Amino acid sequence: MNRRIILDCDPGHDDAMAMMLAASKLNNLKLEAITTVAGNVDVEKNTNNALRICDLLGLNDVPVAKGAAQPLIRKMKAAAHVHGQSGLDGTTLPVEPFKQIVKQHAVDLIIEKIIDSDGDITIVPTGPLTNIALAIRKEPKIIPKIKEIVLMGGGTYGNRTPAAEFNIYVDAEAAKIVLESGVPIEMFGLDVTHQALATSDRMMEMSAINNPVAKAVMQMMNFYSQIYQGKLGFTGAAVHDPCPVAYLIDPTMFEMERVRIDIETKGEFTYGMTCVYTNGMTDREPNANFARTLNQDKFWDLFIRSLKSYS
Amino acid sequence: MNRRIILDCDPGHDDAMAMMLAASKLNNLKLEAITTVAGNVDVEKNTNNALRICDLLGLNDVPVAKGAAQPLIRKMKAAAHVHGQSGLDGTTLPVEPFKQIVKQHAVDLIIEKIIDSDGDITIVPTGPLTNIALAIRKEPKIIPKIKEIVLMGGGTYGNRTPAAEFNIYVDAEAAKIVLESGVPIEMFGLDVTHQALATSDRMMEMSAINNPVAKAVMQMMNFYSQIYQGKLGFTGAAVHDPCPVAYLIDPTMFEMERVRIDIETKGEFTYGMTCVYTNGMTDREPNANFARTLNQDKFWDLFIRSLKSYS
Amino acid sequence: MNRRIILDCDPGHDDAMAMMLAASKLNNLKLEAITTVAGNVDVEKNTNNALRICDLLGLNDVPVAKGAAQPLIRKMKAAAHVHGQSGLDGTTLPVEPFKQIVKQHAVDLIIEKIIDSDGDITIVPTGPLTNIALAIRKEPKIIPKIKEIVLMGGGTYGNRTPAAEFNIYVDAEAAKIVLESGVPIEMFGLDVTHQALATSDRMMEMSAINNPVAKAVMQMMNFYSQIYQGKLGFTGAAVHDPCPVAYLIDPTMFEMERVRIDIETKGEFTYGMTCVYTNGMTDREPNANFARTLNQDKFWDLFIRSLKSYS
Amino acid sequence: MNRRIILDCDPGHDDAMAMMLAASKLNNLKLEAITTVAGNVDVEKNTNNALRICDLLGLNDVPVAKGAAQPLIRKMKAAAHVHGQSGLDGTTLPVEPFKQIVKQHAVDLIIEKIIDSDGDITIVPTGPLTNIALAIRKEPKIIPKIKEIVLMGGGTYGNRTPAAEFNIYVDAEAAKIVLESGVPIEMFGLDVTHQALATSDRMMEMSAINNPVAKAVMQMMNFYSQIYQGKLGFTGAAVHDPCPVAYLIDPTMFEMERVRIDIETKGEFTYGMTCVYTNGMTDREPNANFARTLNQDKFWDLFIRSLKSYS
Repeated sequence: MNRRIILDCDPGHDDAMAMMLAASKLNNLKLEAITTVAGNVDVEKNTNNALRICDLLGLNDVPVAKGAAQPLIRKMKAAAHVHGQSGLDGTTLPVEPFKQIVKQHAVDLIIEKIIDSDGDITIVPTGPLTNIALAIRKEPKIIPKIKEIVLMGGGTYGNRTPAAEFNIYVDAEAAKIVLESGVPIEMFGLDVTHQALATSDRMMEMSAINNPVAKAVMQMMNFYSQIYQGKLGFTGAAVHDPCPVAYLIDPTMFEMERVRIDIETKGEFTYGMTCVYTNGMTDREPNANFARTLNQDKFWDLFIRSLKSYS
Repeated sequence: MNRRIILDCDPGHDDAMAMMLAASKLNNLKLEAITTVAGNVDVEKNTNNALRICDLLGLNDVPVAKGAAQPLIRKMKAAAHVHGQSGLDGTTLPVEPFKQIVKQHAVDLIIEKIIDSDGDITIVPTGPLTNIALAIRKEPKIIPKIKEIVLMGGGTYGNRTPAAEFNIYVDAEAAKIVLESGVPIEMFGLDVTHQALATSDRMMEMSAINNPVAKAVMQMMNFYSQIYQGKLGFTGAAVHDPCPVAYLIDPTMFEMERVRIDIETKGEFTYGMTCVYTNGMTDREPNANFARTLNQDKFWDLFIRSLKSYS
Repeated sequence: MNRRIILDCDPGHDDAMAMMLAASKLNNLKLEAITTVAGNVDVEKNTNNALRICDLLGLNDVPVAKGAAQPLIRKMKAAAHVHGQSGLDGTTLPVEPFKQIVKQHAVDLIIEKIIDSDGDITIVPTGPLTNIALAIRKEPKIIPKIKEIVLMGGGTYGNRTPAAEFNIYVDAEAAKIVLESGVPIEMFGLDVTHQALATSDRMMEMSAINNPVAKAVMQMMNFYSQIYQGKLGFTGAAVHDPCPVAYLIDPTMFEMERVRIDIETKGEFTYGMTCVYTNGMTDREPNANFARTLNQDKFWDLFIRSLKSYS
Repeated sequence: MNRRIILDCDPGHDDAMAMMLAASKLNNLKLEAITTVAGNVDVEKNTNNALRICDLLGLNDVPVAKGAAQPLIRKMKAAAHVHGQSGLDGTTLPVEPFKQIVKQHAVDLIIEKIIDSDGDITIVPTGPLTNIALAIRKEPKIIPKIKEIVLMGGGTYGNRTPAAEFNIYVDAEAAKIVLESGVPIEMFGLDVTHQALATSDRMMEMSAINNPVAKAVMQMMNFYSQIYQGKLGFTGAAVHDPCPVAYLIDPTMFEMERVRIDIETKGEFTYGMTCVYTNGMTDREPNANFARTLNQDKFWDLFIRSLKSYS
């Protein structure tokens, strides 16, 4: 049976790749909904991009709902320097989507889906956690009914600041709510997403795939790689957001560690840090599984097979 | 024409008195909705109490919606030591209300009422600001359509800690969102609500009024006064929550000052402080009117006339 | 027998008045040392001013030592807007003092005096607490030998910010060290020093005293009063710093309350607040006596008699 | 000509090894003074250990001065779990040292040495930075006369907490003062000291050296390694403190990066983090060189040659 998921995202090049992975018929996932949030760029653009990717992937039946326009407490800080002004620069996709959003607010769609479920829906956030936090606070009854939250965010070091990864930095208070909620958490942070590098070998292999989805993904990959290989000095783009989706398809490609994670919201220089306590550093109860290593061959094999599954 | 208000409250003895004032036919207010929030006690009890008071006051047509069960970020800290285990100890009102809540969540009722209005609805919060903050973050379009927020909370000193008043202390992050929202704010804090004291003279005068509402209010007043005159050392109970309602009926009984107010959310000992900048202490733009003095005779005259207006 | 004190100050108009009170033969104090600290203006100017006042008062035998040039952690914020560029504007005292400082650093002089004493020396800080904190940290053995610390600073409200009084605001970390040191503390904050107002009646009475000290003090008072009566809107200058000295001469003119005081060092808007827990607000041990009320007649009687004692 | 250094330390097994390196006739360093500070254990024990190591190494002419007994602001947190109750468990050195401390306080000895120098003295702190911070605040004139501060502490990750390394965690406020002082800083943090591992090969080689110093160092190494190889899970003990000394002897064995470093003192979970901004993460001025990589062969070659230089 297919695993039911809600994808909460801010596309974003790597969000789009996560959608591709989640929507491939090859994989055992059922997309119950796609919800959007302010993050890489503003929520209007992120939502527009989500719809454009749905058009590309043929996701006609999956409801897309627009969510929070800004973080819980802090002012918004976008990441247009990574994703371009549109949030999805580099593609030749039509600018205006054919698909439309549903009327419901993302927060309400999440609540409704979870409440109506048998406790079998997993939430996969690949952007800031604002929607999830709002849903938890608006309707706490969802807490015991969320199967798990499998998210991209955090890490033992940062990319937005020395201490903080972008998704958590944008809305650390939301992350704190989620991490302290009691819902089972699987965190895919920079430690592992920086192992998911689209090196030139892999880029070559992917560019040979001849279908519209693969071509669009390659356009994104090319744009996105320039940023990573340019000023960030990586050997290839880090495709962060597909990691939690890949985990749901094949958990064996990751090594996970049971840890305590606290979210810093008070620091002068460390706002948004995910403090990962391992190795007996705390007596407090663990509240998350934290991804340590990725089997890169398995990951790219899955990624490329999924790309090929589109026609 | 009547002024339209939404009362967002956590009854609570003085919340009940605020409802009495707002509902009196004598006064020029139209209650559009009553919404409840976790505060003095938990949101279930506060909601139950709101319904019981509606039964007492004959508010059959005003929708009551239940709101947030806990603060945005911090754990809940109730005030049962002031209001008793039920949140409304001391009365002989029926324990179970006749009136029922609407299905809609308080946050959604607030959003709907504001969006559907002509910008003529005032929100009157007399508890923690969680619902208002959630509404603002869920639907930012309400911001320019709220006429004003006239609230009980804050002050230049505290009652929950040396720095913080109870309502703001319970959810300082929500207060920060509200104060920084750009909506016009009138704040009635401890500086002025501690001038609204139910001294023995006034208690005597009220106890002579012979109608069921007045009798119930006196029962509450008697319970509530014991706390204030006992361990708090006041000469009478401070009836905090009626102050913003009284202001809407007759603004001339208050002296207001245009100020900048910042909400402390980071401090070690000062969480929830409302920092009121007067007297050239800051160059930043003012964001609120802050109540300084109350004409006590006018206030009690209004209060007693309103009590008498019930039959 | 005379009570032995070390005066740690940043003159400053009201520091100078505190020195006048302490040095008057009428009173039962023995000035063991005067130490200076950065505060109202920089430590060089404050030291120069201390020496000039010593010349005026005939304090030839009291050693004056220069102390810390800046706060422990934060950058210096002076108060030239209150005391003028020299820190003592308005007087016609010679600009260059005759008296010289000792070679020893203020911190070392304090340590030496306390270590060599029989535990009978009281420290009277009327500026930021940097020197006292440095002395405590450099030589913790002084802690049980300090008789008490009787200081001007703090209050339940602020003058530098809504939350913080100037002396504590300048170096809140130092204040935290002092308040948590275990040394007996008497705190004279704004609540009581704002009762020590040099109203026009008192000014008139003082201006009739015909000796050089009284004339110099009146020059200071006139300058200082303009600030208070001008933009601060007081009915007279608040002579803060003489309060702790007056207390040592006649404790009966103050009403003190046993309280717990915590110093806020983390807040976004409340740095330097002295959180005064009264009325059962905390279970933690009290650590200070906090001045609540001043008998103004006794205070000004002492002040004027002291002024007259000079010839 | 020999490079003049003051070693400020809290021995501590690896502090002792740093002393051994610094004192070897082979190397081009001149020990002007050894100062001690509370850190690994209390300052009394650390001082006693420093004297015992001086006896071992024949450092009869180097003055040893005792310094701060506790951190500037926070309560002391020692590391007896790493270094044992004595701070130097595992050795058979005489418990009581022959050498005695000087009377001067460490802070005053540091100030005197720096003020009397030609700006050619380097300070090498291998413990918490309390003494250095106190010296800077007590006598700011030393700032332009310190050649540089070459310290063990910090890193992009922690060992005391997920965010903070032990030395900085013990007194983050002191570290903040030092990092913001303007003195040239070279920081050797965990990123590089965790490359200085005493693996079993190296242990074997060292255990063959037959002189009293080498034998004592091997005793320490054996004790210390058990902790690291046991619960910390390393392949050998990390000999942190010799790193800055090794750098002064042969800077070519380290790769350094010019960075901005900020010290977190406000965080809820991140107190004492050294936030290292690289890669264009900030526009602010760099204030330190941060050690990235160690040439392990060069390091152990120096270490072993130095051990052999004793007789």
